[in-house]
Amino acid sequence: MYQLSDNIIALSTPAGTSALALIRLTGKDVQHIVADFFSKDISNALQASIHYGFLSDEGKTIDEVMVSVFWAPRSFTGENMLEISCHGSPIITQRIITTLIKDKRLRMAEAGEFSLRAFQNKKMDLVKAESISDLIAAASIAAQQIAANQLRNGFSSTLLDMRQSLVDFAALLELELDFSEEDVEFAKRDDLKKLCNELIANATMLSGSFKFGNAIKNGIQTAIIGKPNAGKSTLLNALLNEDRAIVSPIAGTTRDTIEEKFTINGVLFQLIDTAGLRDETQDEIEKIGIERTQKAMRQANVLILVLDATDKNAIDFYKQIKMQCIDKLGFITLINKADLVDEKTLASIVNGLENGLAISANSKKIAVLLTELEKISEKLNHEAAQPMITNLRHYEALNNACQSLSKVVEGIENGAYLELVAADLKNALYHLGSISGGNIGADEVLTSVFSRFCIGK
Amino acid sequence: MYQLSDNIIALSTPAGTSALALIRLTGKDVQHIVADFFSKDISNALQASIHYGFLSDEGKTIDEVMVSVFWAPRSFTGENMLEISCHGSPIITQRIITTLIKDKRLRMAEAGEFSLRAFQNKKMDLVKAESISDLIAAASIAAQQIAANQLRNGFSSTLLDMRQSLVDFAALLELELDFSEEDVEFAKRDDLKKLCNELIANATMLSGSFKFGNAIKNGIQTAIIGKPNAGKSTLLNALLNEDRAIVSPIAGTTRDTIEEKFTINGVLFQLIDTAGLRDETQDEIEKIGIERTQKAMRQANVLILVLDATDKNAIDFYKQIKMQCIDKLGFITLINKADLVDEKTLASIVNGLENGLAISANSKKIAVLLTELEKISEKLNHEAAQPMITNLRHYEALNNACQSLSKVVEGIENGAYLELVAADLKNALYHLGSISGGNIGADEVLTSVFSRFCIGK
Repeated sequence: MYQLSDNIIALSTPAGTSALALIRLTGKDVQHIVADFFSKDISNALQASIHYGFLSDEGKTIDEVMVSVFWAPRSFTGENMLEISCHGSPIITQRIITTLIKDKRLRMAEAGEFSLRAFQNKKMDLVKAESISDLIAAASIAAQQIAANQLRNGFSSTLLDMRQSLVDFAALLELELDFSEEDVEFAKRDDLKKLCNELIANATMLSGSFKFGNAIKNGIQTAIIGKPNAGKSTLLNALLNEDRAIVSPIAGTTRDTIEEKFTINGVLFQLIDTAGLRDETQDEIEKIGIERTQKAMRQANVLILVLDATDKNAIDFYKQIKMQCIDKLGFITLINKADLVDEKTLASIVNGLENGLAISANSKKIAVLLTELEKISEKLNHEAAQPMITNLRHYEALNNACQSLSKVVEGIENGAYLELVAADLKNALYHLGSISGGNIGADEVLTSVFSRFCIGK
Repeated sequence: MYQLSDNIIALSTPAGTSALALIRLTGKDVQHIVADFFSKDISNALQASIHYGFLSDEGKTIDEVMVSVFWAPRSFTGENMLEISCHGSPIITQRIITTLIKDKRLRMAEAGEFSLRAFQNKKMDLVKAESISDLIAAASIAAQQIAANQLRNGFSSTLLDMRQSLVDFAALLELELDFSEEDVEFAKRDDLKKLCNELIANATMLSGSFKFGNAIKNGIQTAIIGKPNAGKSTLLNALLNEDRAIVSPIAGTTRDTIEEKFTINGVLFQLIDTAGLRDETQDEIEKIGIERTQKAMRQANVLILVLDATDKNAIDFYKQIKMQCIDKLGFITLINKADLVDEKTLASIVNGLENGLAISANSKKIAVLLTELEKISEKLNHEAAQPMITNLRHYEALNNACQSLSKVVEGIENGAYLELVAADLKNALYHLGSISGGNIGADEVLTSVFSRFCIGK
């Protein structure tokens, strides 16, 4: 674990050549450490003030810089903090850092160490810290928007306010246990039950948003499935040509699957072309391909089922697939090769499906598919405007809290021993508190949260 | 040319994912433009103050940011300037910029436009502007040090002070021309001559430093030459293995030349392995190789001549090469395969050369070569501590100024017409002034200086 009393330094902007770069320092002595190398005296600088001058090492000018000064506790970390804005050259930033760490009181920061200090000094809770990490890593505007919302509002102040009321009940129950022989009732059971049920409802709603939140954060897994030769790859190619602007091909195209990313309305879709599905094959490699397709089907948030209009068994195949695919964010059924069959045949297939859309991938008539994907992105953007969970750790904590709260309600209703009810209540409090880090002491949780950060954050 | 009255914006840190990123704005309306999107009112902010808040677009939070405020004329550009420090994600920086430029008063900055405005608003002269550009682009500590010195001190305040005295003389000469029929002498000829000679001496010294300055800035071109099979490539390999730490191989190894970069004492050496030299060859491809070697010899700052101790004509070959190579920063003569001849033979070769160093590239006994390269780097570092020219534009201006000043001296000595002396003096002033940009109006010079800058600088 980190030594949190050290003074630390890190480059906070990307490596590379540019106009400017930012170097951050935090710790109680940073102003004295920089003083030895800076042309201005900053020891009595005003809060949040900026100072122009030169950094030098043994009389040699390294660079012309601006130093911003933030005094504890009014800084990002809650400690004394300096930000050195220098010219953006790797040689300069490296030289400044190696010069400053000649001072034995200063060392290089670990990843996430600035944020960890902010957390330790109660400048932010874990939800906020994690939202900063998500904000930086966001791969789409929608994901960035959720992280920005969480950063600004936390994801549910209601939930955390209710937790505070629960703490009061827990205290009252403890008091009753102390006076257990006197048969008093400090904590009104009906009020406690009501609060627990409200919390369960609120937490369940939030944990239900994980499905959307996680998909937005990591990209909407969109699998194209269908029988062999239904036209899946033709469709993929048509999608990539249809509107090149919303397509960004990525490297790593493998022999068995093709993955492409594109963004619609700020929502990132990860398109996966899969091997064709058929029941009986003797080809061992094809079998492996089909297993992968089935895995992709299970993991996908959105499925695009491509039927072949010339296939006599299209409707049966549709029913078979549809049955396996419940609880998806989207299920789009396309009837490909619609131009190869007569109107009557096409109509009979359409009538056999819910919402089947006729296309011709070969002639690039696939606008209906784009419209469907747009609808999904709009739905997700609508969801994203609500408080939303994107983090597996939060999701699990909420589910655990709900279980404990249900036991509390059950215990009250069944007149269980007070000790058991109190224990369940404590468990619920622990799980709710772990979300914001209010009662977390365990180093491993903190390390796992902060190690995902950038250096200098 | 740029519209210098526009409000402009640019990302000033490298693209990429990191803790922080900096976005800069300059222009008279920037505080009003940002006001529409920022949660704090900064219109009456104190000079050089920092403000914490949220940037939003149509009610949607984009990011938590710090905005630093600098009012005209006390800013880098001399205009109102804002620096937005946001989280370091390409999505965030792009979103902030696209949001802000919805305001029609704001546009993206051109490369170097921030510095150009600083120059136009007399916040810095051209030498300083160019030194910032060199500082950012510096590929070695020595090059960065020269640029930092220039940034801090200009490269010769003496020179520019003397130019000011010259301006006074020029004015007096003009006055004399007005009263030419009255035979008065306002400008004392001896004093003018003395000043011109001092300036010539000073400028000549500075322009002489270009040889060192340019080599430090662009890397010391170091060619390994010798006859075929003298052991040049073995030497190169030995150099790269000898001390891997100071070697950084670069891509682009071609069939006919091998280039490697390494740094000694902060000085960058560009090592070039060349085709072996021999007088008579019928092989057309080899002829081309030899022509390239001869070109590399002419262009190199330092030559490493590899002789073969077993070659009977080694001394003659040395003399032939040495004659062609004058005016180099270094000429190192190595006697390779020293372990293959007896002591007497080796001694006779050593006696026939100046400073021949016996090595065995094959057994990696080449420490003497590293010592020689270290000496060169120390010499260059010593030179770099003096005022130094690294810029071809400055070098040419100084040479032109010297020519004009010499004509002034000559004219005085020969009693030339006053009009001619005054014209030469004006020319000298023009060339000296062009260095700092004091009398430059021509757009093409400015464009050529500033277009080498990074965006956001």
